[in-house]
Amino acid sequence: MVDKLKVGLAGLGTVGSAVVRILQDKASQLAATVGRPVELVAFCAKDIRDGSLDLSAVRRVADPVALAADPGIDVLVELMGGEGDPAKSTVETALKSGKAVVTANKALIAAHGAALARLAEDNGVAFNFEAAVAGGIPVIKTMREGLLANRIDRVWGILNGTCNYILTRMFDEKLAFADCLKEAQRLGYAEADPTFDIDGFDTAHKLAILASLAFGTEVDKDAIYVEGIRQISLADLEMADELGYRVKLLGVAVRTEAGIEQRVHPTMVPKDAPLAQVGSVTNAVKIDGDKVSLTLIGPGAGGPATASAVVADLCDIARGNRVAPFGRPIALMAKPQRAPMQQHAGGYYIRLAAVDKPGTAATIARRMADEQISLESIVQRRRGHRAEPQEPCSVPAPVVLITYATSEDAVRRALAAIESDGVIVGAPQVIRIEQN
Amino acid sequence: MVDKLKVGLAGLGTVGSAVVRILQDKASQLAATVGRPVELVAFCAKDIRDGSLDLSAVRRVADPVALAADPGIDVLVELMGGEGDPAKSTVETALKSGKAVVTANKALIAAHGAALARLAEDNGVAFNFEAAVAGGIPVIKTMREGLLANRIDRVWGILNGTCNYILTRMFDEKLAFADCLKEAQRLGYAEADPTFDIDGFDTAHKLAILASLAFGTEVDKDAIYVEGIRQISLADLEMADELGYRVKLLGVAVRTEAGIEQRVHPTMVPKDAPLAQVGSVTNAVKIDGDKVSLTLIGPGAGGPATASAVVADLCDIARGNRVAPFGRPIALMAKPQRAPMQQHAGGYYIRLAAVDKPGTAATIARRMADEQISLESIVQRRRGHRAEPQEPCSVPAPVVLITYATSEDAVRRALAAIESDGVIVGAPQVIRIEQN
Repeated sequence: MVDKLKVGLAGLGTVGSAVVRILQDKASQLAATVGRPVELVAFCAKDIRDGSLDLSAVRRVADPVALAADPGIDVLVELMGGEGDPAKSTVETALKSGKAVVTANKALIAAHGAALARLAEDNGVAFNFEAAVAGGIPVIKTMREGLLANRIDRVWGILNGTCNYILTRMFDEKLAFADCLKEAQRLGYAEADPTFDIDGFDTAHKLAILASLAFGTEVDKDAIYVEGIRQISLADLEMADELGYRVKLLGVAVRTEAGIEQRVHPTMVPKDAPLAQVGSVTNAVKIDGDKVSLTLIGPGAGGPATASAVVADLCDIARGNRVAPFGRPIALMAKPQRAPMQQHAGGYYIRLAAVDKPGTAATIARRMADEQISLESIVQRRRGHRAEPQEPCSVPAPVVLITYATSEDAVRRALAAIESDGVIVGAPQVIRIEQN
Repeated sequence: MVDKLKVGLAGLGTVGSAVVRILQDKASQLAATVGRPVELVAFCAKDIRDGSLDLSAVRRVADPVALAADPGIDVLVELMGGEGDPAKSTVETALKSGKAVVTANKALIAAHGAALARLAEDNGVAFNFEAAVAGGIPVIKTMREGLLANRIDRVWGILNGTCNYILTRMFDEKLAFADCLKEAQRLGYAEADPTFDIDGFDTAHKLAILASLAFGTEVDKDAIYVEGIRQISLADLEMADELGYRVKLLGVAVRTEAGIEQRVHPTMVPKDAPLAQVGSVTNAVKIDGDKVSLTLIGPGAGGPATASAVVADLCDIARGNRVAPFGRPIALMAKPQRAPMQQHAGGYYIRLAAVDKPGTAATIARRMADEQISLESIVQRRRGHRAEPQEPCSVPAPVVLITYATSEDAVRRALAAIESDGVIVGAPQVIRIEQN
């Protein structure tokens, strides 16, 4: 049996504690499976969240950067989080010291993925981050190993459990967004400051990593168009249902003729698409390749699930199996050509609060036609769904349009014109449609 | 750059041809990604199905066993199929000659998996068979690498596209089994002799492999309880729908207190379970581990999808990344303790054709109670769904029972008693229920 793999762990929060438990509880099974012990020999933590952990045989190091340079470890596991220091300098130090690195830090990879991958390559060490995207779902291994015979044309998915929980619960229980968010916070599914999740930034970090893996381009987080779920109303979810769709916060990265399109926004997906059927906090990723289209569904967060991914990364290292961080040598990774969001092509759901006076519908329809936008359906309802004809009234009536494929640009121009015509009240609600 | 990986390919059917195309069309991309060329240097085939393949630069060898021993190749790809010779002797020869082997041959692995894995281990070479289970879905990599921190308690799935196509189409279009089978044959989704698919044997082969990976036990195909879909009627599918279920042919392997339970049979799954929603020829596997429950959905057959898996296996070998065939050393793999089917515990759907005379329902209910079987629901309908009370008539009326968890044994005894009571006509229809 080869020497044991000596692990140094920086960060003992929920995931770090779960990693310690797996390495300790399953020590003999893991050693037998991979052919050598995988042993936690040192750690570094500001606080130890789980007081019941037995760390008596593990050396505590005060500073994570010192731990990263410690000659007593072979691999550094970074679970502190955050794109800046100490996480960044800790990972850099470990790679420069010739140590393999495993991290769950999506912010770090999204911000510095290419540079860190280069450092790993230059030093001939593994740099694994399975846990950074979709928690317990082995999507990174799947993309860089399982599907490497494919040209990937699109990768998209439900990458944030908080948002999926809120959208699922709103629809199932007919709740308003704000009430649902409070409930999610009470249950611990949303942070006290929920911005990072519900405004789409968390999804964007993960999408940037998936896009890099899919297209062989450098991580390009700043190119992502990001829109969160704050503006989604129960009325939208119910109208979507009626029209045959579900609304999900998706991260979508697509190879287009104009370049790589990366976007995060509430999205209508046909009900029978696998992603439409994924509810609650569960995550899901669909990878559309030229040979295989694959959907992976599983837990996107939580200590044990995320730790499962961290330990799998460690076991690859223990087995001596190394794959380039983004699946190919750095020299092959190009700066991505960015496809501008204005050129996004697809169908749209548009909900307008139309002024109830003669000519409104004609005006809306004409503005759409002016931009060559074809409509698949128009649903106009008087308030209260009354079937009887009525006198015009001053309360605006919701008008919902579903367009055939058109461009973001055309939709924005048409809506600006409709607003300037004075036939609608308030801002139009726009939800993009993604076909399976 | 390391020397090229020299591939010898035995078998040029649909999958073999697709492998050749990927290796040729994507040669430079694959070489750059894995760091060395992966080149087809020799092949052996009775027939070349696809006449447009350019094999002019590839050496043809007459005999597959000679190809396996050929000093000019590093890895042998076996795509001939069948559990016996020439596939078996070809794979054995390659492994004994110190060559890595990639195969898509589920019958071979199901019959000789443990012995071949031992041969690979003894000779220190890779033995990969991703394509043998669920075609293009990388389920084997996921189990032996991605989820290796998990104790897996159940692996189950839709592993045969033909059966899933027939069951989906029967329900969607209200067709009888026989008509649907004919249609599947016409479309090329079913063989002229469909036995292997529709009687569950193909699913059993794949399940045996998954069970071995999940539980670390030797492949034990002969322990599998197998029941196909010939007896499923449209009435069953419609009644299942009414009760909140879909009917799928599943392979299910579960760790129970009595041992490893392996079974293939039509199964009712709750409509909101991921597997319930997988239609047509698509495959899906759910892996329930102690840290992560994961569902994988994708193409289970077809040349390009299956070839994608074969090429991924080749690329692992080209990268020098080797994992034990069943995820752990042979010394760790035990003979499985078999859980007898009679002890299977779960819910049951039972459809009886009840004689329409006083006391029938009471007799059925009493026989169930005698075996301590609790009923979740009983649906009894007069023929034609007439709402008016009628005189008893001589035509039997369908009675559908859904039981709470009980045992196979109890159900069989109760049904035998009911049959001997003479209150039903024909054989009872029994479909097991699997909870998500």
